[in-house]
Amino acid sequence: MSKVIAQLCISLDGCYAGPRDDEPNWFKSVEAPGFFRITRWVTESMAWRDRLQLEGGEANVNDEVIAESFARPGAYVMGRRMFDGGERPWGEEPPFRNPVFVVTHREREKLERQGGTSFTFVTDGLESAIAQAKAAAGEKEVAIAGGGTMIKHALELGLLDELELHHVPVILGDGQRLLDVNIGAREGIELVPERMIHTPEVTHIRYRVEGRAPLVLDSRGGKYEGLGES
Amino acid sequence: MSKVIAQLCISLDGCYAGPRDDEPNWFKSVEAPGFFRITRWVTESMAWRDRLQLEGGEANVNDEVIAESFARPGAYVMGRRMFDGGERPWGEEPPFRNPVFVVTHREREKLERQGGTSFTFVTDGLESAIAQAKAAAGEKEVAIAGGGTMIKHALELGLLDELELHHVPVILGDGQRLLDVNIGAREGIELVPERMIHTPEVTHIRYRVEGRAPLVLDSRGGKYEGLGES
Repeated sequence: MSKVIAQLCISLDGCYAGPRDDEPNWFKSVEAPGFFRITRWVTESMAWRDRLQLEGGEANVNDEVIAESFARPGAYVMGRRMFDGGERPWGEEPPFRNPVFVVTHREREKLERQGGTSFTFVTDGLESAIAQAKAAAGEKEVAIAGGGTMIKHALELGLLDELELHHVPVILGDGQRLLDVNIGAREGIELVPERMIHTPEVTHIRYRVEGRAPLVLDSRGGKYEGLGES
Repeated sequence: MSKVIAQLCISLDGCYAGPRDDEPNWFKSVEAPGFFRITRWVTESMAWRDRLQLEGGEANVNDEVIAESFARPGAYVMGRRMFDGGERPWGEEPPFRNPVFVVTHREREKLERQGGTSFTFVTDGLESAIAQAKAAAGEKEVAIAGGGTMIKHALELGLLDELELHHVPVILGDGQRLLDVNIGAREGIELVPERMIHTPEVTHIRYRVEGRAPLVLDSRGGKYEGLGES
């Protein structure tokens, strides 16, 4: 059975881009500089450059992480905002090379693109999109491609089996946060690290998502027995 | 020359405690459950329990990280809020065993405690407290003990040489953020990982703080030459 996986680049303060901005030219917005910093290691990888039909790049361990992230999914799920932003720049041969299921409120005909990518528009929600992606993925995994809101939503709903975070050693101070999930203040989402690859540019940690669990006080080794009883 | 160092436990979403709360009994506040979760690995360590004169604990690699964090500083700098919260529970033999310089607006006589801890109240700012701590630390390091606001302030002012983050694999969703430093949206604080110790409970990464640097757009490998020019 396919797992539902996602991966994200984040700063040490948990941001994947600068603060949201209404600047119509996104490249001039304050969102862009943080996003570019966090994803710089990706654009330096040979696997990414190859997928985008660019010359050069470095074949290193970060490159292998990217190559693997292209190889594992047999289908993708994507939010409407990410699709809208990508439709034009991705062009006739988008980098997914697999069926993509776009969660949206607007009905639209399926789009077939070159290189194995298709876009199917799903109007009955994320769970339905995941079910359709699982059927299309065969033995491979279903990846939530993004954006952040879609991944967050999958985490909140307990639909994500695995999350790989690419921790980039920079502090942005403020920005869009991928993990500000809407759960109670007395519960957290527990994860279990299953693989760790550390490089100077980025630390890749792949987590199994255990799911929501209550956050409990302990007695601090008996030091604070009865704490909170007063 | 002493380095100025700090260490923090943070969740994957960059929080060190739950959201700020005015509940007078802190143990009943929504701040506490997140803080307890993030620091649970500490209380399970033998070095911490030993320092607090408790029985038990586990001698493992996390324990060594704690033991080292007690061994390296020759003096501490602390915020006023942390001192106020700790003064009573720390008692006659606080766990610092070194001179502590408390940044405050209130003049107060120096306190001498058992076991090598003293508290000196510094009313002319963080830089002065660090200078006094350096003079007291000898060959050892100066640690910013906390709280979060003080560490943030040292980062903003470029006064921190090293930051060790203990990344705990839990998502809190909302809470107090240690790294929401007040810098411009087009600059970040760059760090360079110098040591990484990974365990299932927590990933310890020690970073050298490089300092503020502009966040620049790149051309995404030539794909977006001229981006943002329109």
